[in-house]
Amino acid sequence: MKTILVVGIGTGSAEHLTIAAIEALNRADVLFVPDKGIGKGELADVRREIIARFVRQSDPRQIGYAVPRRDAANPDYGRGVAEWHMALAEIFGLLISDVPQGGTGAFLVWGDPGLYDSTLRILEHVSEPIAVEVIPGITAIQALTAAHGIALNRIGEPVLITPGRQLAAVETDTVVMLDGRMAFLDADPDLDIFWGAYLGTAQQILVAGRLGDVRDQIVVMRAEARERHGWIMDTYLLRKPE
Amino acid sequence: MKTILVVGIGTGSAEHLTIAAIEALNRADVLFVPDKGIGKGELADVRREIIARFVRQSDPRQIGYAVPRRDAANPDYGRGVAEWHMALAEIFGLLISDVPQGGTGAFLVWGDPGLYDSTLRILEHVSEPIAVEVIPGITAIQALTAAHGIALNRIGEPVLITPGRQLAAVETDTVVMLDGRMAFLDADPDLDIFWGAYLGTAQQILVAGRLGDVRDQIVVMRAEARERHGWIMDTYLLRKPE
Ligand SMILES: C[S@@+](CC[C@H](N)C(=O)[O-])C[C@H]1O[C@@H](n2cnc3c(N)ncnc32)[C@H](O)[C@@H]1O
Ligand SMILES: C[S@@+](CC[C@H](N)C(=O)[O-])C[C@H]1O[C@@H](n2cnc3c(N)ncnc32)[C@H](O)[C@@H]1O
Repeated sequence: MKTILVVGIGTGSAEHLTIAAIEALNRADVLFVPDKGIGKGELADVRREIIARFVRQSDPRQIGYAVPRRDAANPDYGRGVAEWHMALAEIFGLLISDVPQGGTGAFLVWGDPGLYDSTLRILEHVSEPIAVEVIPGITAIQALTAAHGIALNRIGEPVLITPGRQLAAVETDTVVMLDGRMAFLDADPDLDIFWGAYLGTAQQILVAGRLGDVRDQIVVMRAEARERHGWIMDTYLLRKPE
Repeated sequence: MKTILVVGIGTGSAEHLTIAAIEALNRADVLFVPDKGIGKGELADVRREIIARFVRQSDPRQIGYAVPRRDAANPDYGRGVAEWHMALAEIFGLLISDVPQGGTGAFLVWGDPGLYDSTLRILEHVSEPIAVEVIPGITAIQALTAAHGIALNRIGEPVLITPGRQLAAVETDTVVMLDGRMAFLDADPDLDIFWGAYLGTAQQILVAGRLGDVRDQIVVMRAEARERHGWIMDTYLLRKPE
């Protein structure tokens, strides 16, 4: 049977790689590296740096693949995602057919493979029998709180993690990810926000303060940075003031 | 000014250390290592292994300190925590006074410093002016989902992280931490549970299934393991079946 390693690589800094992830990349006969899609230039650079710095073999076997676009126009969100997964499962199947029998392939996954990432789910649909092993990685959430020097939670209190499209009135301290439409614009201006983009990279931007006071600044910085880079990934924590 | 590094070391495996954490430990003039408290033998072993394997200086300066017990009997939870923080701030102040002027001290923090950990909050109460830098670490949550080979979230759905004492009826997929009283016993037996203890260590135990079916098994395994080790740390994900 083939082994597929799903390796969390952190969210922008090669230095967020763990020793376990480095060992996993070195154990693999083949590395699967997405080479198209959002932030392709800069995110691909991070992956390339990781491989160049930490894979001991001088010329490891790498197979690039293009991640197809999800049809965001599909009014049925679930259906759109399911179709996208099926397209990816086919691509993954082809990639895995290139792993030698009894050998090991590794997917380099942004952040942690368990957090808003489809790799594990797609691998369930690959028809070839495979053993899957997950290597955890630093998520955008830890990158955010570390960069701001804050704790994620209040003492003894819960925290909610949510995609932007599901953000509702903030009762619990809330981390927002996957937010294309700036959901914070509709939130209570008296909340505190800890916002970060390009976390872990040299381009990292941070803003913190009362939402009503820093909202416009975030909107402007976000638009400028997005224009400059051609893409943006941001994450933020919203909470009532202490 | 002195620099204090708050370094996340992961939750049990030395291999969960990141390159950034290793660099931070090597940058420090002094390492602060808790050497009493819960799981003192085994958890101290992990910290010792980390220092022995990854700190290049052959005999780095280490200062051990005892973490005082929080008065769990205090009926006012907030007050109990506040008093405990003040006691720790005094200890931290003494530790930091040992850092050379302009030098660097590093605290080794279990998991990620942002998740249910008091170090950052206590450092705010240290009277000496210090520059604090946080290095993120793999949390028990990532260790749990990686060990089970599952995603933390459903597609596009939120996730709640909560201490056991705040667990309520599970509407949102929920991760429970800091659960001394087995809050899962009161949860709907039709939920699925993904449970893990001693995550990342050689003693790691995992159980997954319908809560009603595996609940008793967890209770028994938990009691046995706790008896054997003298301590236990467990984390679990509860969610409605797909
Ligand atoms: C598809 S999810 C992947 C999350 C990733 N698996 C993790 O563990 O962080 C992408 C979302 O993660 C967040 N994200 C990922 N990398 C980021 C970065 N470097 N800076 C800010 N946010 C980031 C953003 O909210 C983005 O919309
Ligand atoms: C004081 S909190 C510290 C959390 C840590 N900062 C983190 O990032 O995971 C302690 C709780 O974390 C969880 N935990 C920490 N290490 C664990 C391990 N090795 N296995 C299972 N749970 C663990 C348990 O829920 C425990 O009650």
